Amino acid sequence: MVVGLGQCSLDILGSLGQYPPVDSKCDLDKVLIQGGGPVATALVTLARLGVPGVFLGCVGDDDFGRRIARGLEREKVDCRHLLVESGASSQFSFVAVEQDGGRRTIFCHRGSCRPLIEDDLPAEMICSSRLLHLDGSHPAAALAAARLARANGVITVLDGGSWRPGIEELLPLIDHLVVSGRFAEHWVPGRPVQEILPVLLGFGCQAATVTNGEAGSHTQSRDGESFHLPAFSVKSVDTTGCGDVFHGGYLFGLLQNWSLLRTVRFSAACAAIKSTALGGRTAIPTLLAVEDFLSR
Amino acid sequence: MVVGLGQCSLDILGSLGQYPPVDSKCDLDKVLIQGGGPVATALVTLARLGVPGVFLGCVGDDDFGRRIARGLEREKVDCRHLLVESGASSQFSFVAVEQDGGRRTIFCHRGSCRPLIEDDLPAEMICSSRLLHLDGSHPAAALAAARLARANGVITVLDGGSWRPGIEELLPLIDHLVVSGRFAEHWVPGRPVQEILPVLLGFGCQAATVTNGEAGSHTQSRDGESFHLPAFSVKSVDTTGCGDVFHGGYLFGLLQNWSLLRTVRFSAACAAIKSTALGGRTAIPTLLAVEDFLSR
Repeated sequence: MVVGLGQCSLDILGSLGQYPPVDSKCDLDKVLIQGGGPVATALVTLARLGVPGVFLGCVGDDDFGRRIARGLEREKVDCRHLLVESGASSQFSFVAVEQDGGRRTIFCHRGSCRPLIEDDLPAEMICSSRLLHLDGSHPAAALAAARLARANGVITVLDGGSWRPGIEELLPLIDHLVVSGRFAEHWVPGRPVQEILPVLLGFGCQAATVTNGEAGSHTQSRDGESFHLPAFSVKSVDTTGCGDVFHGGYLFGLLQNWSLLRTVRFSAACAAIKSTALGGRTAIPTLLAVEDFLSR
Repeated sequence: MVVGLGQCSLDILGSLGQYPPVDSKCDLDKVLIQGGGPVATALVTLARLGVPGVFLGCVGDDDFGRRIARGLEREKVDCRHLLVESGASSQFSFVAVEQDGGRRTIFCHRGSCRPLIEDDLPAEMICSSRLLHLDGSHPAAALAAARLARANGVITVLDGGSWRPGIEELLPLIDHLVVSGRFAEHWVPGRPVQEILPVLLGFGCQAATVTNGEAGSHTQSRDGESFHLPAFSVKSVDTTGCGDVFHGGYLFGLLQNWSLLRTVRFSAACAAIKSTALGGRTAIPTLLAVEDFLSR
């Protein structure tokens, strides 16, 4: 079983010709409303690949929260431990996506839900799972969950999107660090990724990967394995959620006990396929679709 | 009775420090969801001033459409002729508002509702009303409604926001043109407003006003009256909907048979008060509040 603890949000995506200057008005050609959030979308990916997981997080009891929960349940993500906070507003993002090339600008509202704490965690479920996926949100609960995981031989994976206070405490409890270039930059500003990876490994993980969108990814393991994978070349329509989907693929690879190289290549394929349609989840592939893509 | 025929939308307003560059991510400090649209918000203004009107327009049978209708009904705007189109998506805008100064950038999706046509109009209701307010949307229905109004001595007012094809047909049927600087620019590009007003009067209206936000408004009447009013000085938080609220005040002045000067001054006060809070409708004043503001 896979347990994910992190953010979930409602994304309103609008596609447009060109991102407008301040104080002007522009028309959106298309609007799409769907769930988002790093851990939530990683679990949706995993479910489409055939492995339903359990999501731990929080929504408000508003229209947006109901849509978030409905979206996860429809994808067969187990939401029985999703906290619904009375009177709170759910996390929401408006994402402006340029039609040509898929550059996206995100306006994110964190909402007013309280972060989960240790007492909110289904401890037994975490202890008996194979993987725990985190995104650095709900810091107190994430720390408690990672400690439980470590004590019970559960493999931990962290999606490091942007640096957050308190993340240093979490890092030594993580087995697989898969982080954005922006997150990596925080530790060794202005240095090439080859110098950043050893720093990340220094926190004690088994493997660290830095993803950089179209520039591909760099991976290094504690065993000395090291490789760069270019991104797959596809006609990208929307890069929203590409990182989240990469993580879903990575979790899948870990479950299969694949080599690191095969896992990262599979993850990159999932992300590339996802980018071919508007929305963070629209084009998340099935296992068959990824295999087909990789065999071309 | 006042009948308004035009746009209604759902606005999601997010306040932020500074409008972000393309391809970045920014946090919204506050999010507010409320109804918008030129004619719909003008009717909300009129209702708060004490005169409930009838709204003619269209929404989809989606979450957004239900919120739009609920918002109008709560403000005592008569929605019995609001068309709810099955399977269509409602008009929606995301509005990014800078905290300092209230500059707003609008991302608008027109939705997929069909425009109203002549057969959708409650003809008797229009014929027996005192005022008909239009915003140039639903062109075929607007033209038919304006003809009915003209034939039955109903005063017509047009909110000209941006120029639309077909508006030339409508203009000769309008008694009061209250348009944005951008709309005026279409007719006489690059000329000072003093030269634009006679052009607008040339379409046959009784009075034409061009509003220019903080630069105030210019008005000219067929009788030769002409004046410039500076905008009231207030601490502006959000300029969304200021034009719509100006129109609501203008409709109110017409109903009272006030002089043009008094009507425009009252309208400008309504718009100024509105700008002091986030949202197109949040701070729309009551009659008492406008009188208090003007007597200071």
